Amino acid sequence: MPDPHLKALPAPLARCLAELEKLPGVGRKSALRMLYNLMARGPEAFESLSAALGAVPLGVERCSECRTFRESGSPCPVCADPRRDRSQVCVVESASDLYLIEATVEYRGLYHVLHGLLSPIRGIRPEQLGLDVLEARLVGGEVKEVILATPPTAEGEATASYLASSLADRSLRVTRIGFGIPVGADLQYADAQTLARALTGRREYR
Amino acid sequence: MPDPHLKALPAPLARCLAELEKLPGVGRKSALRMLYNLMARGPEAFESLSAALGAVPLGVERCSECRTFRESGSPCPVCADPRRDRSQVCVVESASDLYLIEATVEYRGLYHVLHGLLSPIRGIRPEQLGLDVLEARLVGGEVKEVILATPPTAEGEATASYLASSLADRSLRVTRIGFGIPVGADLQYADAQTLARALTGRREYR
Repeated sequence: MPDPHLKALPAPLARCLAELEKLPGVGRKSALRMLYNLMARGPEAFESLSAALGAVPLGVERCSECRTFRESGSPCPVCADPRRDRSQVCVVESASDLYLIEATVEYRGLYHVLHGLLSPIRGIRPEQLGLDVLEARLVGGEVKEVILATPPTAEGEATASYLASSLADRSLRVTRIGFGIPVGADLQYADAQTLARALTGRREYR
Repeated sequence: MPDPHLKALPAPLARCLAELEKLPGVGRKSALRMLYNLMARGPEAFESLSAALGAVPLGVERCSECRTFRESGSPCPVCADPRRDRSQVCVVESASDLYLIEATVEYRGLYHVLHGLLSPIRGIRPEQLGLDVLEARLVGGEVKEVILATPPTAEGEATASYLASSLADRSLRVTRIGFGIPVGADLQYADAQTLARALTGRREYR
């Protein structure tokens, strides 16, 4: 709700302010700055931002294969790409993690987007993470490796562990992404847990 | 336009990203953070922000008296307030300046919102600042003082000066807001121009 001193703000603008404040990293001051900027730019500014946001619910859907977002009715750009390595499936928590991995240009396989992590406390069960969809994709035998790229948090590890055990009886390589010292960082600044993971995750020096 | 590494981002989301980046203080990273946050919150988050923004162009209009924004078809909360002092009109550059002055709870008069400043370079002429509307409000003789609260910039001063001379032949008190050392600030940190304004704007010590 707007401050009492914003009572001169018309209700539609006050509602915008409240909605803008729901965005991450946006407090009262930045929301006001955004609102005043839109007001200075005129009604078209409100209309174009509103139209772009309003087009998402119908314009975007989950890919039936990898569950990432795709334009409604269009093929998923990753799944439909014939140059992709169909023997690898990388399991990620969110579509944003997929975009981060895509940005590395290191990975050429396919994905499975969980849209969450297992959490008994928050009531998130395997079905909600589309694990039935993932299992169905593994039936043909084309997939040789499942890479678990969930984050190194309690829920991320629990999800990876659940996936690893449920996939154990298949003739599949199940791998976990590497954890350790970030590239360019000094060992001085690594916490004990990261250092411990770096040690247990050590490899032969080649 | 999204980065090449965001090519997996469906077009409707890429359009949202581009629109969010037009907001002040929002770069690629914060726009992505906002987008991912909206995506995590689901379609309702996009819909409610879109609806709030989309309601502004028709839901908000300029007050016919003071030119500030009011809810369409509703009376302006400042002009319609019977406790307001109708003998004073404060001239401000923008509605946001009006809200700032309202926040001080110091001023109880009326306003005139210019929605800009005179600028021969940008082709902004007196008619565009609604000065005809302001002059019409002064005809009845109820207004005794016009307070010029435009900013102490070249355009702000030019606008104040233009207004002062065009109002000079009326039996009106025309005042300019005070400029000088901000309250709580040290003289050490004031620039020469501010210090000069503080000296010329000096008053009797009471």
